[in-house]
Amino acid sequence: MRIGDLSKLTGVPVPTIKYYQREGLLPYGERTERNQARYTDEHVHRLRLVRALVDIARLPIATAGEVLNAIATPGRDLFKVVGDVHYAVTAAPDDAAPDQQPVAELVNRLGWTVKEDNPSRRALANIFEVLAELGHTDLLDRVDDYAEYAARLAALDVGVLDGRTSTDEILESVVVVTLFGDALVSLLRRMAQEDLSTKFKPA
Amino acid sequence: MRIGDLSKLTGVPVPTIKYYQREGLLPYGERTERNQARYTDEHVHRLRLVRALVDIARLPIATAGEVLNAIATPGRDLFKVVGDVHYAVTAAPDDAAPDQQPVAELVNRLGWTVKEDNPSRRALANIFEVLAELGHTDLLDRVDDYAEYAARLAALDVGVLDGRTSTDEILESVVVVTLFGDALVSLLRRMAQEDLSTKFKPA
Repeated sequence: MRIGDLSKLTGVPVPTIKYYQREGLLPYGERTERNQARYTDEHVHRLRLVRALVDIARLPIATAGEVLNAIATPGRDLFKVVGDVHYAVTAAPDDAAPDQQPVAELVNRLGWTVKEDNPSRRALANIFEVLAELGHTDLLDRVDDYAEYAARLAALDVGVLDGRTSTDEILESVVVVTLFGDALVSLLRRMAQEDLSTKFKPA
Repeated sequence: MRIGDLSKLTGVPVPTIKYYQREGLLPYGERTERNQARYTDEHVHRLRLVRALVDIARLPIATAGEVLNAIATPGRDLFKVVGDVHYAVTAAPDDAAPDQQPVAELVNRLGWTVKEDNPSRRALANIFEVLAELGHTDLLDRVDDYAEYAARLAALDVGVLDGRTSTDEILESVVVVTLFGDALVSLLRRMAQEDLSTKFKPA
């Protein structure tokens, strides 16, 4: 198909498609003898994935590129890809290093294997500090309970990966599950909050 | 204290403090007879909350303002504030309206009370469509399981609110729990994913 068909099929305007190509998010079409570019179903799929990363996961263009690169290299193992995707999307605080001790203790209590340089550790340590400064330590008191449900969600995520057969599918699923899973969980949680807030009576 | 002390105490540069004041996120200090502005502990607290909304919850300045306004009006009820905060932070897709039916059926199955105009409904319907287009329906097949854990997380959130006594504290907790809870859960879930990915073997 031509670029106009790709645009119609996905709802993405042609100038935006060309922008994604310049930014390396979408391969160029194959040149035909009549000097036109030809696009395939793979382009359609890739373009939909790019849109989802930008619109749903709300990634900046450069970060979406890093995520797509993380799954594009052949022969990568899952552990490395999960790490790279997390690195790309987790902005660790760049000001004064937060105290790592409470997060290290939490990881120990839970018995989790989490790399020392996983940026989630620093980002979480920063949340701990800010909540303490704001006087919301009651949320921190329940962090083990939050972690328990987070672990059950992660087990669901891995169950999704388990249903995939090819490496390409598994790697793409890591991205989908991690990023759209974030959005899925926070939207469901907000709907559940609204449901519960109709029943909540302050003491 | 003076604006310089406020800056030192919070680590926020003076020009940034002034910017937040111009944008309506932080009240101006009280003018003294010597034409200086005097700041209190309430300013310190509010400034830390603003920083957390911008840095941790990653809200745009205008959205942070809407969230703070949602909790600032006296006599508001919890249901209304939860709704307003969700409205401010949930970007519903602005392109073609997604099919609402699968979300309506999910809410019915779960027995939740969720307003018809809650933007989470449209945002979730959009995720359903995109996942189907991308061929990741296995994630959708498990949506009831995700919803179950989301509801348990929301129950933890409400438990945090329950420990608060004054209306001001409860309203601020709604913001903290909703927004920092999102970050808390997604970071914990990523750490749990990393832990599980060390054990995962594709079929």
